[in-house]
Amino acid sequence: MDVLAVNTENYLLRFGQVREQTEALCRPLLPEDTVVQPIVDVSPPKWHLAHTSWFFETFLLQKFAPNYKVFHPDYNFLFNSYYNSIGSRILRQTRGTLNRPPLAEIYQYRAYVNEHITELLNQLSENSYAELLPLFELGLQHEQQHQELLVTDIKYILSTNPLVPALLPAEKYVSPAINLPKPEYLSVASGLYEIGYTGTDFCFDNELSVHQVWLDEFAFRNQLVTNQEYLEFMEAGGYQNFKYWLHEGFDLAQQEQWEAPLYWTKQADGWYRFTLHGLQKVNVAAPVTHISFYEADAFANWAGKRLLTEFEWEVAAKHYLPSRKLGNFLENGSYDPQPFSGEQPAANQLLGDVWEWTYSAYQPYPRYNKAEGALGEYNGKFMINQMVLRGGSCATPRSHIRPTYRNFFHPDKRWQFTGIRLAAK
Amino acid sequence: MDVLAVNTENYLLRFGQVREQTEALCRPLLPEDTVVQPIVDVSPPKWHLAHTSWFFETFLLQKFAPNYKVFHPDYNFLFNSYYNSIGSRILRQTRGTLNRPPLAEIYQYRAYVNEHITELLNQLSENSYAELLPLFELGLQHEQQHQELLVTDIKYILSTNPLVPALLPAEKYVSPAINLPKPEYLSVASGLYEIGYTGTDFCFDNELSVHQVWLDEFAFRNQLVTNQEYLEFMEAGGYQNFKYWLHEGFDLAQQEQWEAPLYWTKQADGWYRFTLHGLQKVNVAAPVTHISFYEADAFANWAGKRLLTEFEWEVAAKHYLPSRKLGNFLENGSYDPQPFSGEQPAANQLLGDVWEWTYSAYQPYPRYNKAEGALGEYNGKFMINQMVLRGGSCATPRSHIRPTYRNFFHPDKRWQFTGIRLAAK
Amino acid sequence: MDVLAVNTENYLLRFGQVREQTEALCRPLLPEDTVVQPIVDVSPPKWHLAHTSWFFETFLLQKFAPNYKVFHPDYNFLFNSYYNSIGSRILRQTRGTLNRPPLAEIYQYRAYVNEHITELLNQLSENSYAELLPLFELGLQHEQQHQELLVTDIKYILSTNPLVPALLPAEKYVSPAINLPKPEYLSVASGLYEIGYTGTDFCFDNELSVHQVWLDEFAFRNQLVTNQEYLEFMEAGGYQNFKYWLHEGFDLAQQEQWEAPLYWTKQADGWYRFTLHGLQKVNVAAPVTHISFYEADAFANWAGKRLLTEFEWEVAAKHYLPSRKLGNFLENGSYDPQPFSGEQPAANQLLGDVWEWTYSAYQPYPRYNKAEGALGEYNGKFMINQMVLRGGSCATPRSHIRPTYRNFFHPDKRWQFTGIRLAAK
Amino acid sequence: MDVLAVNTENYLLRFGQVREQTEALCRPLLPEDTVVQPIVDVSPPKWHLAHTSWFFETFLLQKFAPNYKVFHPDYNFLFNSYYNSIGSRILRQTRGTLNRPPLAEIYQYRAYVNEHITELLNQLSENSYAELLPLFELGLQHEQQHQELLVTDIKYILSTNPLVPALLPAEKYVSPAINLPKPEYLSVASGLYEIGYTGTDFCFDNELSVHQVWLDEFAFRNQLVTNQEYLEFMEAGGYQNFKYWLHEGFDLAQQEQWEAPLYWTKQADGWYRFTLHGLQKVNVAAPVTHISFYEADAFANWAGKRLLTEFEWEVAAKHYLPSRKLGNFLENGSYDPQPFSGEQPAANQLLGDVWEWTYSAYQPYPRYNKAEGALGEYNGKFMINQMVLRGGSCATPRSHIRPTYRNFFHPDKRWQFTGIRLAAK
Repeated sequence: MDVLAVNTENYLLRFGQVREQTEALCRPLLPEDTVVQPIVDVSPPKWHLAHTSWFFETFLLQKFAPNYKVFHPDYNFLFNSYYNSIGSRILRQTRGTLNRPPLAEIYQYRAYVNEHITELLNQLSENSYAELLPLFELGLQHEQQHQELLVTDIKYILSTNPLVPALLPAEKYVSPAINLPKPEYLSVASGLYEIGYTGTDFCFDNELSVHQVWLDEFAFRNQLVTNQEYLEFMEAGGYQNFKYWLHEGFDLAQQEQWEAPLYWTKQADGWYRFTLHGLQKVNVAAPVTHISFYEADAFANWAGKRLLTEFEWEVAAKHYLPSRKLGNFLENGSYDPQPFSGEQPAANQLLGDVWEWTYSAYQPYPRYNKAEGALGEYNGKFMINQMVLRGGSCATPRSHIRPTYRNFFHPDKRWQFTGIRLAAK
Repeated sequence: MDVLAVNTENYLLRFGQVREQTEALCRPLLPEDTVVQPIVDVSPPKWHLAHTSWFFETFLLQKFAPNYKVFHPDYNFLFNSYYNSIGSRILRQTRGTLNRPPLAEIYQYRAYVNEHITELLNQLSENSYAELLPLFELGLQHEQQHQELLVTDIKYILSTNPLVPALLPAEKYVSPAINLPKPEYLSVASGLYEIGYTGTDFCFDNELSVHQVWLDEFAFRNQLVTNQEYLEFMEAGGYQNFKYWLHEGFDLAQQEQWEAPLYWTKQADGWYRFTLHGLQKVNVAAPVTHISFYEADAFANWAGKRLLTEFEWEVAAKHYLPSRKLGNFLENGSYDPQPFSGEQPAANQLLGDVWEWTYSAYQPYPRYNKAEGALGEYNGKFMINQMVLRGGSCATPRSHIRPTYRNFFHPDKRWQFTGIRLAAK
Repeated sequence: MDVLAVNTENYLLRFGQVREQTEALCRPLLPEDTVVQPIVDVSPPKWHLAHTSWFFETFLLQKFAPNYKVFHPDYNFLFNSYYNSIGSRILRQTRGTLNRPPLAEIYQYRAYVNEHITELLNQLSENSYAELLPLFELGLQHEQQHQELLVTDIKYILSTNPLVPALLPAEKYVSPAINLPKPEYLSVASGLYEIGYTGTDFCFDNELSVHQVWLDEFAFRNQLVTNQEYLEFMEAGGYQNFKYWLHEGFDLAQQEQWEAPLYWTKQADGWYRFTLHGLQKVNVAAPVTHISFYEADAFANWAGKRLLTEFEWEVAAKHYLPSRKLGNFLENGSYDPQPFSGEQPAANQLLGDVWEWTYSAYQPYPRYNKAEGALGEYNGKFMINQMVLRGGSCATPRSHIRPTYRNFFHPDKRWQFTGIRLAAK
Repeated sequence: MDVLAVNTENYLLRFGQVREQTEALCRPLLPEDTVVQPIVDVSPPKWHLAHTSWFFETFLLQKFAPNYKVFHPDYNFLFNSYYNSIGSRILRQTRGTLNRPPLAEIYQYRAYVNEHITELLNQLSENSYAELLPLFELGLQHEQQHQELLVTDIKYILSTNPLVPALLPAEKYVSPAINLPKPEYLSVASGLYEIGYTGTDFCFDNELSVHQVWLDEFAFRNQLVTNQEYLEFMEAGGYQNFKYWLHEGFDLAQQEQWEAPLYWTKQADGWYRFTLHGLQKVNVAAPVTHISFYEADAFANWAGKRLLTEFEWEVAAKHYLPSRKLGNFLENGSYDPQPFSGEQPAANQLLGDVWEWTYSAYQPYPRYNKAEGALGEYNGKFMINQMVLRGGSCATPRSHIRPTYRNFFHPDKRWQFTGIRLAAK
């Protein structure tokens, strides 16, 4: 049997799985759920479903499939996210006014793209294969990124609805009450460390340009910060005391009247959190999540600790990660960080559960080079005013994350599954 | 046979017709169309469908139906428009983030309310009947107002979609090319005139307090201003020349870069207009519509004429209206003003086609009295910063309009079917 | 002696008095006081000083004085207020960033204009005189309008300064404690009344087009609403109860957290008001002032009364005004409304003390015609979204006011000396 | 002679020089110039004059001078910049509405503080001296920072005035036309380098926590980027081509319609720049200045180069700086970057002329510790969303700058004397 054919089969299998995962996430949604955009950060699910298909259409089908006819001539305008190279597009803040195309047509679009990708891969010459494969892989990774955004955007959309609808059955909500062991600090010796991705699988361009970084000895906590600890910060007046806060963070917190993480609401019998399984009592043992960088940093200052840099985090992860990729990922279906369970290794929850804010601005690595053309717009142009997060979350697909992965958000954002890992001062 | 029973049958027949008209307007919509709110003025169709039912539930069922159980405890919060007396409610600008309740549930809500209204009317004692009837009629009139808003809001929603979807088949679009006769000016003698509604049917409280107004002799045009005439204004630089404009209007027009009525778009072969039947070539014989008060006033100044006051308009209408209520109303299904057809009487299109901007601020008539309680919030609290429009439009139900009817919008609004009738200076 | 010469002398005498009055108002100011613009409504005193001179330069000297050389070529750009006909100009909201020209140079500008106006009048032929005189008079009236604005703008500027500086000596503050007689309502019979200015002296174009208005019988209060009465409204929760308010007014009051008139501040021993003579205890007998139309209307509703229309006001004033123009005007130097003193005639304080909000939108009178050219921009283009006020205030020059005078402001404005006169419902 | 006395004399000499320098900068200003605040970044000169005195009053006199009586009880509210520990204060954006206190009173305030500082130092015991000295030095350094801001704020204030006033005589403007030698790239070998201040003089806390950083070999340009080079970028469409730009930078540049550095204006015979000596023709040999980080980065991308990191810059400066501190600083009085003059050493203009944007976010060094109390608010709370600049400018006092000095601004700011130094890719 032909090796190329075997590979094609594998690739198409994975393609099918990733594409199906996206649709599975949207299956509980009604058409009405897929249209709205309560804040500019959040995109309507319909838009995610279409945009991820547009990516394959634009960067693969239009390039490699002879005589490919686009599904609809206006979709490039509607579903291009931010690629200036590909042409003009609707303003981001108007995604939530797109009543049409209807959801059903978007699913037809997905099927159409799936069909043509399958046809393309089955017909491709060996030479074209080599050229296509990196883009194919990028398309899959890109769709996985949008799977995480689908979870967080759907959550946000539902949360702003006064009916507080639960998307998933409350009985499937899993967040066991657990007595956590006392947290410990694990040391990493000073030295010159290599940073960046050195493997042979996929990585993003922002992980490349492997380079050395000198680190002084440091110690980081084996556990994430829990809701219990965060409640103590809240009760100690943490949100009211400027001295723990960065200036812009405190101003924002005051202006927005923050007094708890996003999605928390106080009721007569204590704090509750909105989840995709409805309103749930805060599990004090679970890692705190949906906090901004400003809150993470303020908490660390209050606790007499600090956040790690992204370099410290990466080195720590490389040292302490178990060989098997354990953790609470998208596939678990909990869509919520879980309390640390004792059977895990020394440094817990480095991968999965919550993205860990680092005190590193998102900047290019030395010798960083953007790709030519439109894909050069994928990462590089966002390297300003954002902070790096590491480790993936309960909404990250398991196959998508690795220790060198650099996620990034503005320091005020709270709707991702963000959390806190402390380092000793 | 019992008279009350006969009346009930008639009332329920009318109730059924009005309620069905609302749903008929929404029948071509997909669920996705009923959710969005591209600007704060526009409400999602789903919201209109629910709010009109909430009105009957709140002001009739909860008051008169013993043991009535509301359809959903949160609907009062979701579908109260602006009645402070009835409690808190969602912010108007967030109506477009209401993914839930889904459209199907709103239709269940409508059916539930219909069923209980029917039950209520069938069981009502004669005494309660007298108390209920004015509210019942108000509920119907209120729903008719929302039918007009449904037409204009749906039109706006579709127009902002880059796909420019036509809701209705283009072949059903009717706007005949016609050679209009030369317009004439009709005179009304000076004198003391009675203003306000004196009949025995329904009217709104803002038409009451019949009172006298002195009018000097005036002359008004028998035809509406046409697209042809408006094009001449545009081509003469009307949008660029401050001297025709009110100060705030000119500032706005500059800032918003107005250069034509709303929904107009220039293509290689001339001007087109977005309609519910898709993009259509501008019919020069049709009345101009979708213009603000500012544009109406600027046009009048450019033409060396002026707008009528609402009192002049009412007196003119009372003198020149034919006994039969002719005109292009909602029921025609064109949803677009039509060119004047010669078989009409001397003063054409006073009712229907377009709401006619008057140069009268919306203010209370002498001795105006607001109702007690929540219904006192229906009209009176809006009597500031708005201008009166008269005559109804192609989106107004025929049975809803009369010469004394006072519509009102802010002078910058353009999404209603607004037009221009001139008076001699 | 030549009659023209005599007249010239009189004109120049009045010119000198008006111009001096403006400077007298500014004499206590430091250069620093004359530059700032805390809100867009308020103009820096330096700007007023220059703009009133620019008016004479632009509309008189440049037109009638042969070989007149403008004082500075850029002043037209800096000190044109809103005359599109005269060319482009700085944005209104940037008047407060004009460090230069310095105050001293503005005074030189004033002297230069004074000198050339004097020269012009002394040399003018009889023919040109006739043409010039209306513009000359308009220039004086215009400057008097700015005298009132100087008082209110200086007050606002000082009030926003945390040092709360008193411009004038506190010991000169006069506001006697008085026991007011019980207010009475005076009747005016129904009838056709003539509205507008019919005299031979100066009036603005918006007072012309004398016309008839039918009025039903009405009764108005002989006294203004006092601080005592307004305090009762406040204490009765008037600011918190939507039912007294226009919708847009209540929204604004909530958003801006209004709970008292502008300039009021509560201290341990009661309410104080900021005045040009420093912070002063609220005199309960004095007329309430610095309230918006929204507050005036809400107060009237709370009191079970209403505001007059501008037509009722004018007719009432024409009937009840004493032959001598009594009242508290700019020349008194109190710059604050005074309690009614019993020696005045039946209807008190119709002129002076406070501008009385009417429930009449500022609209053109029938047959209103704007002047040709730049002066056509003086009044007409503002006839939208504003409400008419009548009667002048403690900051109005005595010779500037008359019963037909129509002042106008947006219904949310509070920094003018505005007050309330009630009519019976 | 007593050593303490000698030192006191020296300290007071330096105190007098620094305080006088501030006033010398303001001497050409009129009172009107010292009040305005055209944008929120810019503070009125009056405010700077007072705030620098408030700093000495608050952190020295109130702490060390027994029975010290503050000059004015409200000045703490008016002239506290951002120290939450010291109490509430006026909103930054309202500094430009402070007509009072007048400039003359601010000068009295300065004299009063000077006098009491002199008295304090002359009477201080040796023990207190040790405690006071760091604060005294910080007060001087703080005032030097505000000297630079005075220059840039005064420049901005004058630039927005339509009269485009020159503060200083044009004939004193010095910017010689020079033929620059070809720029060269100087190498720095890879290695572990020490970063941070290790000397014994004053430095800010953000330069402390000396630590090692690994640098790969790099090469940086011996000359700054000139106006000539920047013009080539402009003419090559640099402002229009998204591919050179960070996403947020390009959006901003489009929105603000940037097409040249701040203060440039095109006239018939070429580009001019606003300077404190009036409008001057662009000197193509001078370093480009008044560009944002976004523009600096876009320029570097267009040129196929990159910006240095702050660590590379510091190491380069330590290697290539001559022993004598050459450069164009505040004391030169040109207030404008000068073309490189050939007599300088290999790496030119590292200090003075323009602050050099680095591609390093302003973050804490490892083991960074904020001071306790109010002074802990001096630097640390700003370590987010800002980029580091190095090297000082033509507005920096010569004694204020050193190679380890970390200045920081948001990446969109352009009103400082910012410039570009390139590194090879």
